[in-house]
Formats: sequence, C-alpha cells, structure tokens
Amino acid sequence: MLQCGYSIVFGSRNPRMSSLLPNSAEVLSYSEAAQKSDIIIIAIHREHYDFLTELTEVLNGKILVDVSNNLKIKQYPESNAEYLAHLVPGAHVVKAFNTISAWALQSRALDASRQVFVCGNDSKAKQRVMDIVRSLGLTPLDKGSLMAAKEIENYPLQLFPMWKFPFYLSAVLCVFFFFYCVIREVIYPYVYEKKDRTFRLAISIPNRVFPIAALTLLALVYLPGVIAAILQLYRGTKYRRFPDWLDHWMLCRKQLGLIALGFAFLHVLYTLVIPIRYYVRWTWTNRTIAQAIAKKESPFSTSTAWLSDSYVAMGMLGFFLFVLLGITSLPSVSNMVNWREFRFVQSKLGYLTLILCTAHTLVYGGKRFLSPSILVWYLPSAYVIALIIPCTVLVIKFILILPCIDKTLTRIRKGWE
Amino acid sequence: MLQCGYSIVFGSRNPRMSSLLPNSAEVLSYSEAAQKSDIIIIAIHREHYDFLTELTEVLNGKILVDVSNNLKIKQYPESNAEYLAHLVPGAHVVKAFNTISAWALQSRALDASRQVFVCGNDSKAKQRVMDIVRSLGLTPLDKGSLMAAKEIENYPLQLFPMWKFPFYLSAVLCVFFFFYCVIREVIYPYVYEKKDRTFRLAISIPNRVFPIAALTLLALVYLPGVIAAILQLYRGTKYRRFPDWLDHWMLCRKQLGLIALGFAFLHVLYTLVIPIRYYVRWTWTNRTIAQAIAKKESPFSTSTAWLSDSYVAMGMLGFFLFVLLGITSLPSVSNMVNWREFRFVQSKLGYLTLILCTAHTLVYGGKRFLSPSILVWYLPSAYVIALIIPCTVLVIKFILILPCIDKTLTRIRKGWE
Amino acid sequence: MLQCGYSIVFGSRNPRMSSLLPNSAEVLSYSEAAQKSDIIIIAIHREHYDFLTELTEVLNGKILVDVSNNLKIKQYPESNAEYLAHLVPGAHVVKAFNTISAWALQSRALDASRQVFVCGNDSKAKQRVMDIVRSLGLTPLDKGSLMAAKEIENYPLQLFPMWKFPFYLSAVLCVFFFFYCVIREVIYPYVYEKKDRTFRLAISIPNRVFPIAALTLLALVYLPGVIAAILQLYRGTKYRRFPDWLDHWMLCRKQLGLIALGFAFLHVLYTLVIPIRYYVRWTWTNRTIAQAIAKKESPFSTSTAWLSDSYVAMGMLGFFLFVLLGITSLPSVSNMVNWREFRFVQSKLGYLTLILCTAHTLVYGGKRFLSPSILVWYLPSAYVIALIIPCTVLVIKFILILPCIDKTLTRIRKGWE
Ligand SMILES: Cc1cc2nc3c(=O)[nH]c(=O)nc-3n(C[C@H](O)[C@H](O)[C@H](O)COP(=O)(O)OP(=O)(O)OC[C@H]3O[C@@H](n4cnc5c(N)ncnc54)[C@H](O)[C@@H]3O)c2cc1C
Ligand SMILES: Cc1cc2nc3c(=O)[nH]c(=O)nc-3n(C[C@H](O)[C@H](O)[C@H](O)COP(=O)(O)OP(=O)(O)OC[C@H]3O[C@@H](n4cnc5c(N)ncnc54)[C@H](O)[C@@H]3O)c2cc1C
Ligand SMILES: Cc1cc2nc3c(=O)[nH]c(=O)nc-3n(C[C@H](O)[C@H](O)[C@H](O)COP(=O)(O)OP(=O)(O)OC[C@H]3O[C@@H](n4cnc5c(N)ncnc54)[C@H](O)[C@@H]3O)c2cc1C
Ligand SMILES: NC(=O)c1ccc[n+]([C@@H]2O[C@H](COP(=O)([O-])OP(=O)(O)OC[C@H]3O[C@@H](n4cnc5c(N)ncnc54)[C@H](OP(=O)(O)O)[C@@H]3O)[C@@H](O)[C@H]2O)c1
Ligand SMILES: NC(=O)c1ccc[n+]([C@@H]2O[C@H](COP(=O)([O-])OP(=O)(O)OC[C@H]3O[C@@H](n4cnc5c(N)ncnc54)[C@H](OP(=O)(O)O)[C@@H]3O)[C@@H](O)[C@H]2O)c1
Ligand SMILES: NC(=O)c1ccc[n+]([C@@H]2O[C@H](COP(=O)([O-])OP(=O)(O)OC[C@H]3O[C@@H](n4cnc5c(N)ncnc54)[C@H](OP(=O)(O)O)[C@@H]3O)[C@@H](O)[C@H]2O)c1
Ligand SMILES: CCCCCCCCCCCCCCCC(=O)OC[C@H](COP(=O)(O)O)OC(=O)CCCCCCCCCCCCCCC
Ligand SMILES: CCCCCCCCCCCCCCCC(=O)OC[C@H](COP(=O)(O)O)OC(=O)CCCCCCCCCCCCCCC
Ligand SMILES: CCCCCCCCCCCCCCCC(=O)OC[C@H](COP(=O)(O)O)OC(=O)CCCCCCCCCCCCCCC
Ligand code: HEM
Ligand code: HEM
Ligand code: HEM
Repeated sequence: MLQCGYSIVFGSRNPRMSSLLPNSAEVLSYSEAAQKSDIIIIAIHREHYDFLTELTEVLNGKILVDVSNNLKIKQYPESNAEYLAHLVPGAHVVKAFNTISAWALQSRALDASRQVFVCGNDSKAKQRVMDIVRSLGLTPLDKGSLMAAKEIENYPLQLFPMWKFPFYLSAVLCVFFFFYCVIREVIYPYVYEKKDRTFRLAISIPNRVFPIAALTLLALVYLPGVIAAILQLYRGTKYRRFPDWLDHWMLCRKQLGLIALGFAFLHVLYTLVIPIRYYVRWTWTNRTIAQAIAKKESPFSTSTAWLSDSYVAMGMLGFFLFVLLGITSLPSVSNMVNWREFRFVQSKLGYLTLILCTAHTLVYGGKRFLSPSILVWYLPSAYVIALIIPCTVLVIKFILILPCIDKTLTRIRKGWE
Repeated sequence: MLQCGYSIVFGSRNPRMSSLLPNSAEVLSYSEAAQKSDIIIIAIHREHYDFLTELTEVLNGKILVDVSNNLKIKQYPESNAEYLAHLVPGAHVVKAFNTISAWALQSRALDASRQVFVCGNDSKAKQRVMDIVRSLGLTPLDKGSLMAAKEIENYPLQLFPMWKFPFYLSAVLCVFFFFYCVIREVIYPYVYEKKDRTFRLAISIPNRVFPIAALTLLALVYLPGVIAAILQLYRGTKYRRFPDWLDHWMLCRKQLGLIALGFAFLHVLYTLVIPIRYYVRWTWTNRTIAQAIAKKESPFSTSTAWLSDSYVAMGMLGFFLFVLLGITSLPSVSNMVNWREFRFVQSKLGYLTLILCTAHTLVYGGKRFLSPSILVWYLPSAYVIALIIPCTVLVIKFILILPCIDKTLTRIRKGWE
Repeated sequence: MLQCGYSIVFGSRNPRMSSLLPNSAEVLSYSEAAQKSDIIIIAIHREHYDFLTELTEVLNGKILVDVSNNLKIKQYPESNAEYLAHLVPGAHVVKAFNTISAWALQSRALDASRQVFVCGNDSKAKQRVMDIVRSLGLTPLDKGSLMAAKEIENYPLQLFPMWKFPFYLSAVLCVFFFFYCVIREVIYPYVYEKKDRTFRLAISIPNRVFPIAALTLLALVYLPGVIAAILQLYRGTKYRRFPDWLDHWMLCRKQLGLIALGFAFLHVLYTLVIPIRYYVRWTWTNRTIAQAIAKKESPFSTSTAWLSDSYVAMGMLGFFLFVLLGITSLPSVSNMVNWREFRFVQSKLGYLTLILCTAHTLVYGGKRFLSPSILVWYLPSAYVIALIIPCTVLVIKFILILPCIDKTLTRIRKGWE
C-alpha cells in the first residue's frame, strides 16, 4: 500500500499509489527520501512512528500525510495524526486517504465512497493534499483542523452505526413474534390435536412475523414525532433539547423505515407465492373434492368478497406508497427535491401509508377479531398485538392535528412563546 | 432559527446556526452586533426589514446574508434580497440558505437537498458566504447576480412543479376509465341481471383502470417526439421553436413515464394477487365442482395455451424493460452514463417497451376483440379505447423510420437545410 | 450547435450555446470574430480545421475550445484536440463540452451525465473554460493534459463498454440452455409421444433458462475472487499482476451481478404468474376433477410440504438479499457507505445470496435428482448442469476460509512475504 517510506519520482498520474513499483520510482533510504520530497505520505503503522523522531530536522516544514488506521475504535487516547504532529512538531501534518482502500484504488474497482476526508492545521498544506486527491479522481472533503482526525480515523472502522439500534430492535421483534406464533400454531395443535404442523415454520409463520414487524416498525417511525410534539406542547417551547433517547430515535427513523420496507417486501413475496405452495394447493384441492363428492356448491357471499378484496387492495396501495417512500430516501433522489417536497412525501404520504397498512390489518382481522375462538391458551392472534402501537400513533396524531392544538404547536415551532 | 439579530462569537464550527444559544455567544443590541461582525445573517421576516434603514451607516461595506422566504409565490413585486439591497445600498447583499430547513440542520437529520443556492452582486462577498456554506458541510451553488434571487426565493415554495401536469392528466384518465368500467361492469349487470357486482370496485375495476392508464401515459411519452419530428419535417428546419405546449410536454415526459411505471407496478401487483382473491377462488372452485358433478373434463386447447402464455410473457418482458427505464432515470444512474447510452436506453428500449405492452394488450384482447358481445350499451371494452393512442404512435414512428424519411429528418436535425 | 465560427456577444447566461441566434449575437466573419473574442469555441468538424491555419496569427494567445467528436473510435491516429494544437501552435487548446448534447442543453432536458471532461496543457486557459462550464450549471472534471483528449473524444462514442462481455456471456448461456430445454421438453415429447408442447416456449422454458442463467452468472461473480486467492496462495505474493483475462473479469463482476439480478427478477415474475396461466389451471382443475370422480382424496405428506415450502422460502430470501446487493450498487448508495460496509454487503451478503440460491435449487431438485427418469436422451435436467459452477465456487471458498489457509492468505494480502 501507499508505499512512501520510499520516495517516488513523479511520472504518471497516480504513481505514488502504485505498490507494484513502477520503473520510474526511485527507492531511497528514509532520510534521503524525506529530503528530496515535499509531500511525504506516511504509510506505516502507528507503532513504528517513533523512528520518525530521528528525522525531525529533515522533516521540518514538510507536509506529512498520515494515512494510518487503527484496528479498533478507541485503541489509543489520541488520534494517530495528532500523535504524529506531536512527534514531528515542525512538520505540517495532514490526515487523508485513510478511508480509501489502496487495493481498490489500484485495481480501479473503487465502488464504495470516493470521498476523501482531509483535515489538518495548516491550510496551505491541506490545500495541496486536496489537489492531489482531486488529481486522483477522488473528491476531497475538508473536515477542518486536526482535532477532526479522531473522527476520520474511526470512520473506516464503522459498520453501519445508525443501523445498529433498528437492527437489534427488529431482531427482538422478530424473535418474540416468532415464538409467539410457534406456540399458537405449532405447539398448541401438537399438544391438543397431535398434529405435526412443523412445516408452517418455513412460510406460514414467517408470513405472520414479517408483516407484523413491518407494521410495528412503521408505527415506531412515526411515534417519536408524536412524542416530540407532546413534549413541545407540554414544555411550551422548542428551545429545550429533547432527551437523548428521543433524539437518537428521531435520527434513526430513516433506518427503521427502510427495515420496515424490507419486511413489507418479504411479506408481499411470501403472500404472492401462497397459491404455488404444496400445502395450500392440497387444502384447496381437497376442499373442492369434498364438496364435489357431497355435490354441493358453496354459496357466494358478497360481503366476504368485499372484505377480502378491500383488505388486499389496501395492502397493495400501502405497499406502493411504502416503495415510494423508499425511492425518495435514495440519496440521489432526496438530493433533487426541496425540503417542502421531501416533507410532503415523507410526512404526509408516510402517514397515509401507515393508515393504509393499519386498515389492511384491521380489515384482515375483520370478524375474527372478537370471536373467542382466536384465543389460544389465552393468547390473542398476533396481529391483534401488532395493532396496538399503530392505532395509538394514529389516534394521538389525529388529536394533534385538531385545529386548536395544531395552532398552538405551530406557534411553538415558530419560536413564539 | 438562524438567530442573527444577535451577533455570535465564533467558536465551534456552526455556532451561528444554533438556536439554543451556546454559552460562547454574546447577545448584543442590533447596532453593536452589526458593528462587531463582518458577515451578518438577516434572519427576520421581510416585513421587519425597515428597521435596518437606521443602521445603514454601520452596515456600510458589510456582507448581509438574506435568508428570508415568503409565504406565497409572487407575494411581492421584487425579491426580498433586492428589497434589502435597496434599503441598505452600501452593503453587499448575498442571498443564501433560504432553501435549507434550520430545524433539520440543527437536528442533523438533513435528508433533502444539501445544495445551497447563493447569489449576489459582489463576487468577493459571495465567495466568503460560499466558504461558510462549505464549512457547514453543504454544497454551495452559485446562481449569479442578485437578479436570480427571485427564482431562489420561489424554489422552497415549489411542490413538484414538473409533476403537476402529468399528475392531473393521469387523474383525469383514471377517473374517466373508472366510470367507464363502472358503467360496463357494475351498473349494466345490475340493471339487466339484478346482480350485485359492487365488490368489483375494489380490485377488478382498478385492475382495468391502472394498466390502461399506464399504457396511455406510456404512449403519451412517445407521442411528442413523433409530433416534433413531423413538425420538423413539415417546416424543413430545426431552427424554429416548437409551440409552447409541445415544449412543455416534451419536458415532462420523464414525469409522465414514471407515473406510467407506477401504474404498471400497481397493475402487476393487482394481477399477481388474482389467485388469492376470494371471488376468483370461489369461481374456480365452483366451476371445477360443476364439471366434476357433470363428470366431464374440459379439453385442452393448445392455441388458448399459446395465446394466454404469450400475452402474459409479453407483459412481463414489457414490465421488466419498464423497470429498467425507471432505474436509468434515477439521477445517480443517469449521471453515470453518457448521452449515447442514455438515449439508447430511453429511446430504443423505451419503444421496445411500448411495443411489448401494446402487443400484450392486443393479444389479451385476442379473439374477443371483434366479437359483438363485448359491446355493452354500444360501449366497447375499455382496452379497445386504450389501444388507440399507442397504436397510432407506433404506426407513425414506423413510417418515420422508413429509410427515405429518416434520412431527411436526420439531415434537418444536423442543421443542413 | 455551439455556433462559434460566429462570435457571440455575451448577454444572457448561456448565449453561446444557443443555435437559434439571439438578437444580441453579432455575426462576424471568422477572422473578425477571432480578433474580438478571447475564448473561441471551435464547433466545426475536424475535416474543416485546416482553414484555421490562415488565422494562426490572430489566434495567437487565444483560448481555443475544441468540442469536436468523431464518428468512430480510432478514426484518426491523433486526437482532434492535439491535431488542432498542432495546427495552431500559438493558441491554448482546451478540450471540453464534447460529451454534452447541444440539443439537450438547449431544450433543458439534460438528463444524462452533467459532467464535462476538460483537458488542456495551459492550466489558466483550462481554469477559465471550467468557469464557463460551471456557470452553465454543469460540472467540470479536470482530466489533465491534452494527452487525455483521446480518451475524452472516445467517451461519447462508447456504448456500455463494461457491459459487453457480461452481455455476450449471458446471451450465450441463454441460447445454450434454451435449446437444451427445447430438446428435452418440446422435441422429445413430440418425437416419442406425439404431443404438441410448443406452448412451453412462452413461459415454461424461459422460466428454466432465466433462473439457471441467474444462478450461473451469480456464481461467475464470485469465481474470479476465488481464482485470485488461489493464484495469490500459489505465488505467495500479491505483488504480481493477475493475468489480463482475470483482471478484466474481476472488473466486470458488478455488471455480471446486475445482469444476474435481472434474470432473477424475471424468474420471480415468471414464477408468480404460474397460477394464472391457462395451462397450469387446466392441469390443476383436471387433476381435481379426476380425483373427485374417483372419489379419493390425496393424502397429505408433511415431508413434501417441508421440502416445497423450504425451497421456496430459500428462493425468496435469496432474492431479497439479491435486491439488497442491487440497491447497494446504485452509485448514490455506494457513495454513502465506507469501504468496510461495502465489502460487508457485497462480499458477506453476496456469498449468503449464493448459498441460498444454490440451496434453493438443490432442494427443488430434491428427490428427483438421482432418479433415472430425469435423464432424457441421456441428458440430465438443466438445473443439474446449472449447479456445477455454484457448488464448485462454494466448496473452494469453504476450503479457503479454513483458518490455516485463511491466515496465510491474509498475510500475503497484507504484504508480508
Ligand atoms: C420507507 C421509509 C423511508 C424513510 N426514509 C427516510 C429518509 O430518507 N429520511 C428521513 O429523515 N426519514 C425517513 N423516513 C422516516 C419518516 O418518514 C420521516 O422521518 C418523516 O419525516 C417523519 O414524519 P413526521 O411527520 O412524524 O415527523 P417530523 O416531520 O419530523 O415532525 C415531527 C417533529 O419534527 C419536529 N419539527 C418539525 N419541524 C419543526 C420546526 N420547524 N421546528 C421545530 N421542530 C420541528 C418536531 O419536533 C415535530 O414534533 C422513512 C420512513 C419510511 C417508512
Ligand atoms: C419509466 C420511464 C422513465 C423515463 N425517464 C426519463 C428520464 O429520466 N429522462 C428523460 O428525458 N426522459 C425519460 N423518459 C421519457 C422518454 O423515455 C425519453 O424522453 C425518450 O428519450 C423519448 O424518446 P424519443 O425517441 O421519443 O424522443 P427524443 O429522443 O427526444 O427524439 C425525438 C425528438 O427529439 C428531438 N431531437 C433529438 N435529437 C435532436 C437533434 N440532434 N437536433 C434536434 N432535435 C433533436 C427531435 O425534436 C425529435 O423529434 C422516461 C420514460 C419512461 C417510460
Ligand atoms: C446484484 C449484484 C450487484 C453487485 N454490485 C457490485 C458493485 O456495485 N461493485 C462491485 O465491485 N461489485 C459488485 N458485485 C460483485 C460482487 O458482489 C463484488 O465484487 C464482491 O465484492 C466480490 O466479493 P469477493 O469476496 O468474491 O471478492 P473480493 O472482495 O474482491 O476478494 C477477493 C479478491 O480480492 C482481492 N483482494 C481483496 N482485498 C485485498 C487486499 N487487501 N490486497 C490484495 N488483494 C485483495 C484478492 O485478490 C482476493 O482474491 C455485485 C454482485 C451482485 C450479485
Ligand atoms: N491497506 C489499505 O487499504 C489502507 C488504506 C488506508 C490506510 N491504511 C493504513 O496505512 C497504514 C499502513 O498500512 P499497510 O497495509 O501499508 O502496512 P504494511 O503493508 O504492513 O506496510 C507498512 C510499511 O511500514 C514499514 N515498516 C514496517 N515496520 C517498520 C518499522 N519498524 N520502522 C519503520 N518502518 C516500518 C515498511 O516499510 P519498509 O519495510 O520498506 O521499511 C512497510 O512498507 C496502516 O495504518 C493502515 O491502516 C491502509
Ligand atoms: N425556519 C427555517 O427553517 C427557515 C429556513 C430558511 C429561511 N427562513 C426564513 O428566515 C426568516 C426568519 O424566519 P424565523 O423562523 O427565524 O422567524 P422568527 O422565528 O419569527 O424570528 C425572526 C426574528 O426576527 C426578529 N424580529 C421580529 N420582529 C421584529 C421587528 N419588528 N423588528 C426587528 N426584528 C424583529 C426577532 O428577533 P428579536 O426578537 O431577537 O429582535 C426574531 O428572532 C423568514 O423569512 C423565513 O422564511 C427560515
Ligand atoms: N451536436 C452535438 O450535440 C455535439 C455535441 C458535442 C460536440 N459536437 C461536435 O461538434 C462538431 C460540430 O458539430 P455540429 O453538429 O455543430 O456540425 P454542423 O452542424 O455540421 O456545423 C458545423 C459548422 O462548421 C462550419 N463549416 C462547415 N464546413 C466548413 C468548412 N469547409 N470550412 C469552415 N467551416 C465549415 C459551418 O459554419 P458556417 O457555415 O457558418 O461557416 C457549420 O456551422 C462535431 O465535431 C461534433 O462531433 C456536437
Ligand atoms: C419491490 C419493493 C422492493 C423493495 C425492496 C426493498 C428492500 C429495501 C430494504 C432496505 C434497503 C436498505 C439498503 C441499505 C443500504 C445501506 O446500508 O445504505 C447505507 C446508506 C447510508 O446509511 P447511513 O446514512 O445511515 O449511514 O443508506 C442509504 O444511503 C440509504 C439508501 C437506502 C435506499 C433504499 C432504497 C429502497 C429502495 C426501494 C427502491 C426500489 C423500489 C422498488 C421497487 C419495487
Ligand atoms: C418492481 C417495480 C417497482 C417500481 C415501482 C415504482 C414506482 C415508481 C413510481 C414513480 C416514482 C416517482 C418517484 C418520485 C420521486 C420524486 O418526486 O422525485 C422528484 C425528483 C425530481 O424531480 P424533478 O426533477 O422533476 O423536479 O425526481 C427524480 O429525481 C426522479 C427520480 C425517480 C426515480 C424513479 C425510480 C423508479 C425506480 C424504480 C426502481 C426500481 C426498481 C425496481 C424494481 C422492482
Ligand atoms: C424487484 C426487483 C427488481 C429488480 C430489478 C432489476 C433488474 C436490474 C437489472 C439490471 C439493471 C441494470 C441497470 C443498467 C443501467 C446502466 O446501464 O447503468 C450504467 C451505469 C454505469 O455503468 P458502468 O460504470 O459499468 O459504465 O451503471 C450503473 O450506474 C449501475 C447502476 C445499477 C443499478 C442497478 C440497480 C438495481 C436496483 C434494483 C433496485 C431496486 C430494487 C428493487 C426492488 C424490488
Ligand atoms: C401487496 C401488498 C400486500 C398484500 C397482497 C397483502 C396481503 C396479505 C394477506 C393475504 C394477508 C393474510 C395472510 C395470511 O392469511 O396469513 C396479510 C396479512 C397481513 N398483512 Fe398484508 N399484504 C400486503 C401488504 C402489507 C403491508 C405493506 C403491510 C404493513 C406493513 C401488511 C401487513 C399485514 C399484517 C400485519 C398482516 C397480518 C399478519 C397475520 O397475523 O397473519 N401487509 N396481508
Ligand atoms: C408482469 C407483468 C404483467 C402481467 C403478468 C400482466 C398480466 C395481465 C393480465 C393477466 C391481464 C388481464 C387482466 C384481467 O383479466 O382483468 C392484463 C391486462 C392488461 N395489461 Fe397487463 N400484465 C403485465 C404488465 C403490463 C404492462 C407493463 C402493461 C402496460 C403498460 C400492461 C397493460 C395491460 C392492459 C392495458 C390490459 C388490459 C386491461 C383490461 O382492460 O382488462 N400489462 N395484464
Ligand atoms: C422469490 C423468489 C423465488 C421463488 C418464489 C422461486 C421459486 C421457484 C420455483 C417455484 C421453481 C420451480 C420452477 C418450475 O417448477 O419450473 C424454481 C426453480 C428454480 N429457481 Fe427459483 N425462486 C425464487 C428465486 C430464485 C433465485 C433468486 C434464484 C437464483 C439465482 C433461483 C434459481 C432457481 C433455479 C436455478 C431453479 C431451477 C430451474 C429449473 O430447472 O426448473 N430462484 N424457483
């Protein structure tokens, strides 16, 4: 990687990156190299930095580019770049390039971010490094003084930090509802009717768990906004910070929403394959055969047709809007719309999605809802539990948009107290 | 918001944005603040600007950043920034930041556009403001002189301006075809056969309306190109502007196409749930039972199998290409392709999509097409009407690409007359 | 287009682009125009460049912007811009704008790339041209010296260069498997049972070909990484270039993967319409009628239910991850993630996708796998052949991640020898 203990004579456009030393590169000793070059890329691990102390004189006034990364977040108290600046006080230390994979750069397959975060105390040195970045076809992003180095060094070690909480939350939801349904639909029939229903684990039960998780997560996207509004109403001002948990929750609504979309997508797939499943076909066929043998046709019920068609229709429209929300979260699309448009889609259409999905579940429940037969070991159907949060959010939101309350809220948000 | 009647001592990176006044911020009277600062952000409503006239002297040579917005488009004859420049002639007025939501900035949840439009007459002042924008992690976009302020002030008030015409057009189409189908499929059976078919309103009729809207809109995407070609042929030159309506129509083809994609997506969803609908299953089951009781199996018709399979296959391929067109309209994808590639996808594959979708509908109509039984109250099936525009477009396009005409057209477009 | 034999007086923001000559434009003779202007856009075909030799004196010190394109790649030995620089040695030649469609610019419908590649030997001239580019609302991209002009001139002539190999490969795969299946499923029944199965050409056979192509291409995405690893292990170093074919293969993995996603999408569509196909419904109905007439219900087999449900479930999960891989390849999304996150999704989730899809096919094959009845004219089922590459890749990968081998490999990739 970024070999730079060796000075490299500048020939082609990105020779200093090349690890297959090109012919035009001179290989010199450290101090010689340091003397000859103006900009020195320090591509060695932090542990070996101390040998640079011997070169402090030679390095005086030179630009040192620190590209190092650590193996863990919080491995050292100070950032590598600050440590380097401390070791070689005369040099202008600039932190850069650490987020870029040298291998990807070299093999021209660079698909992840092309942004190079740059920071440093000397703005001229920073400018020169940013020019190099640009000449390599990458985009420099100035992050300010060397104090930002810590953040920059942590960046490549992160693995979806904002997705962690939504991910764990949805994992917990899934596991809970999975076991809940297993108890109701596999263990109960086994205990009481000695029926082997384990095959339901593959599709039927996931197709309860996924939509429930989707609906719950979707409601949890809109819950913090509602809580924030209540808090602002209660406090009568917007000039006080929300509690930390609420703040964090509001910041990961996008991630919650996208995970909800993922579950909804799975629900749709799982629903659409219903008619090609062996179990379902077997049931339908046998019911038909039984009726044919008994020579009686079932009568047509218009109300059932209405209910069945309308819950499916609401599900489909809800899913369509859901996908639209997903599309507008794509960075390139959200970058094209102004704030008012973004809010219109995310907030207005988002609530419409929530309403449609909740209605879909309510109508699906339909008559079954209150019949006692749905209680199994005193446990209600899973979707009944799933409806609690969405309905709560919708009811509170409905209250909040009543003209009188809405006016007070708008005033508070405008800063009038 | 952008509190700036108060001058703020510069400490952290974006303190002047903070409405929860940080400790490091000094609160001074207006004139004191104005004296101390160099760049002054005017975050007050236009109505209160007049008090600034008192400060004209202090403001001489200072940079005034106007961030104000109005409540309606065309509220005032001149833009706020120009009004401000008029009030304080000695200052360098720069318009900026008005498109950014202060709340979103503060809560770090900025997802809509990060572009900050900047305009102003003094290029040095503009440069300094753009530096501040950059240091806040946003992207400045220079829009030129203060004359552009009007456009910049209108921008955040817009709500999908280019989508308006396509949206209304498709609403009209939907409503028309909806009532058309209701008459044929709900009212007619009710009047003549006293059958209650209202449940068809939920899925069956939307699944006629959506694909028809999709097909018509898709044809309307390619119609203006064809009209433009005829116009150019007729005029014999490309150096004359198209009439305004054609120009506007050509500019909103993308939006028309995406709405068509939305309808096609809904059609596909509505089609795929067909087998899980109660009504459909009831019909199939009862037909089977009737046959079983009558002890006769229906014979297999290869030609029906061919027709049925091929219209569905064409629909699926058409939809696939449709989605591809959608993907290439994503700003980030279209930004990666060159003009020739974009045209190849949008124009060539676009026509292929249109051909496949039209053929899908034609073959679906199949034999039923000409049978008189499809006339209900002298109204033909809805898809017959839907086919008119697509077929016209395809026929004209076919004529236009005949070698002789194509050559003339190419010449005209090359500027040879 | 870019009329510039005529000098144009600068009035509005992009007058020099306008081909409908605005009133404010003066039309002068070439030499007069050249004298008056500072920056001259040469919008004439290369063949006519020679007349410029007469103007060499006038053009001395001026900036010449070469916007020309050729009709074919490699039409001339040297680039047009270099040729121009050679003709007019005193002028500063800058190559720019050739990638932009003048027509699209003029009609404000510019949707393809807004990047303008700029190159030139004089950096001040380049800077001025880049300013013009920016003022037109486009993004300039500095490509270095005039040597880059060749590349820039070839760019707009390209038609998806990286997609060529994947496209041809998949075409070959499709054609091969198509005929393979036609032989097994259309010709064989016709020859031996005189049955007309040609209708299978529309959906049934494509629904074998598409998933097989998807699976094979997906495996081919991960094969080069495995080969590279073996090569590195064998050589014991990473400091030697891979053979060219491997290099090229590694660079078009993204395209291979996306095409595989396209096929998988088609497979899913083709699978979901199964229950609404006439042929399938006819089969199901008749089987039911036959059973009803015989008055026997088929028994329920839990193991079949398990197998059927689990292969479908694996397919759906595989497809879900597949779509996720697709979403992270969108330029705007991949630009938001760091290298570690991108590798996590593409490499870890990618292998998971491959495992799920392979398992899906394996379980689908299930018992049928080894039964001799699947051999038709000694040809095994198509999916058996399709499984060869994926299984090989997975087995080798499994060996490579055994701790001992993995350690050696990691060392080699770290540069320790
Ligand atoms: C599929 C999907 C994708 C999503 N993608 C995104 C995404 O890309 N980006 C994203 O942010 N969200 C995304 N979300 C989450 C969600 O849609 C949005 O956060 C949405 O804006 C929330 O709407 P809201 O009306 O509840 O909240 P908000 O619009 O945030 O309003 C509620 C709260 O905002 C605060 N507020 C608003 N305006 C002001 C003001 N002027 N002054 C003070 N306080 C104010 C108040 O505290 C108020 O209580 C996504 C959701 C889904 C389902
Ligand atoms: C799902 C979907 C997504 C879409 N997304 C987009 C999108 O993102 N962006 C977009 O623009 N469109 C989009 N469209 C619309 C459509 O596909 C394109 O506009 C397409 O390019 C139209 O092709 P065409 O051949 O009819 O028209 P054109 O390519 O525009 O050609 C027809 C007319 O163009 C003019 N013309 C072309 N070249 C020249 C020239 N050299 N000189 C003078 N005149 C010339 C002529 O007037 C000619 O009559 C989308 C459509 C769909 C269905
Ligand atoms: C739908 C879909 C979309 C896709 N989109 C993309 C895309 O957008 N971009 C993309 O690139 N790919 C894409 N792919 C292809 C594929 O997922 C990726 O290329 C993936 O990273 C390959 O993983 P791998 O583990 O096999 O290979 P790699 O991660 O490349 O690892 C294997 C080889 O990489 C080399 N290597 C890795 N690290 C080092 C190192 N430090 N030093 C030296 N050599 C090293 C070694 O030669 C090693 O043998 C896509 C695939 C699919 C199916
Ligand atoms: N690989 C990447 O993609 C990438 C990307 C960005 C940042 N980084 C960071 O760059 C740094 C270096 O990574 P690397 O992969 O290049 O490491 P490496 O392959 O281990 O090489 C480090 C270099 O350090 C020198 N070195 C080793 N021990 C030394 C000692 N005791 N004293 C002086 N010099 C010594 C060696 O040079 P000589 O043997 O020639 O003296 C060697 O070339 C790390 O902090 C890494 O996080 C890597
Ligand atoms: N909110 C946003 O997201 C946003 C984004 C971009 C642009 N804008 C625009 O910025 C402008 C201000 O919006 P805002 O939300 O900040 O408004 P605001 O909350 O109503 O506050 C405006 C400020 O103006 C001062 N003020 C009020 N009356 C005044 C008077 N008669 N004379 C002098 N000063 C007076 C007040 O300062 P003191 O009480 O301290 O004197 C107050 O802090 C609007 O034009 C808005 O469109 C807002
Ligand atoms: N069209 C595009 O979208 C686009 C985009 C980028 C680059 N380009 C490139 O720009 C170049 C010009 O394309 P174009 O479409 O503008 O071509 P064009 O329409 O054929 O016009 C070229 C100009 O060259 C002049 N000309 C013709 N013969 C000449 C001769 N013998 N001596 C001197 N001048 C002569 C004519 O000017 P007078 O009759 O007034 O003397 C004419 O205006 C091409 O290389 C093209 O590849 C085009
Ligand atoms: C048919 C419907 C298909 C929908 C399928 C979708 C499932 C989506 C599930 C979640 C996707 C998460 C992506 C994660 C990537 C990531 O980590 O991305 C990480 C980045 C950066 O995240 P942070 O800013 O949080 O660090 O996130 C993004 O940039 C978010 C972009 C998300 C885009 C989601 C787009 C969904 C699009 C649906 C579009 C298409 C429609 C199709 C229609 C049929
Ligand atoms: C399975 C298929 C799924 C397809 C589902 C799609 C429905 C799409 C309906 C229209 C979408 C409109 C978005 C509007 C956002 C907006 O207002 O966006 C507004 C911006 C700015 O618009 P203006 O420039 O006109 O102001 O528009 C855009 O940037 C357009 C981007 C549109 C991207 C559409 C992408 C469709 C993608 C399909 C991809 C995925 C594939 C999936 C496959 C299965
Ligand atoms: C429901 C699933 C739907 C999936 C449907 C997808 C089929 C995709 C087939 C391949 C697409 C290729 C696009 C080619 C454009 C091009 O040439 O693009 C060319 C550019 C530039 O290519 P080069 O860099 O190779 O020159 O490529 C790209 O920028 C690649 C972007 C590809 C994005 C693919 C996104 C797939 C997204 C799926 C998302 C949505 C999900 C939906 C869910 C349901
Ligand atoms: C195309 C769109 C959709 C269709 C066709 C659809 C269809 C269905 C069907 C058929 C059921 C009954 C499942 C069963 O019998 O086990 C169901 C249940 C359910 N759906 Fe949907 N749905 C769609 C979208 C959605 C969306 C977007 C959500 C919400 C986020 C959702 C939430 C639910 C819930 C919570 C249940 C109840 C789960 C249970 O307990 O069984 N659906 N849906
Ligand atoms: C996956 C892709 C598709 C499938 C499986 C499909 C399937 C079908 C089916 C089964 C019908 C008959 C509906 C009925 O009986 O009421 C139909 C009708 C129709 N389809 Fe599609 N289709 C697809 C895509 C498309 C697309 C992309 C378009 C065009 C834009 C389209 C346009 C139409 C039209 C216009 C009709 C006639 C509507 C009517 O009057 O009933 N289809 N399609
Ligand atoms: C929603 C997701 C999926 C579903 C519901 C699904 C369903 C099916 C079904 C029902 C079959 C049997 C087809 C037949 O009877 O002719 C099948 C076959 C197959 N599937 Fe999938 N599949 C899915 C995704 C995938 C994916 C992502 C791949 C791989 C890339 C894949 C690869 C295959 C292969 C190779 C076959 C065997 C083809 C043959 O020879 O018939 N499937 N799939």
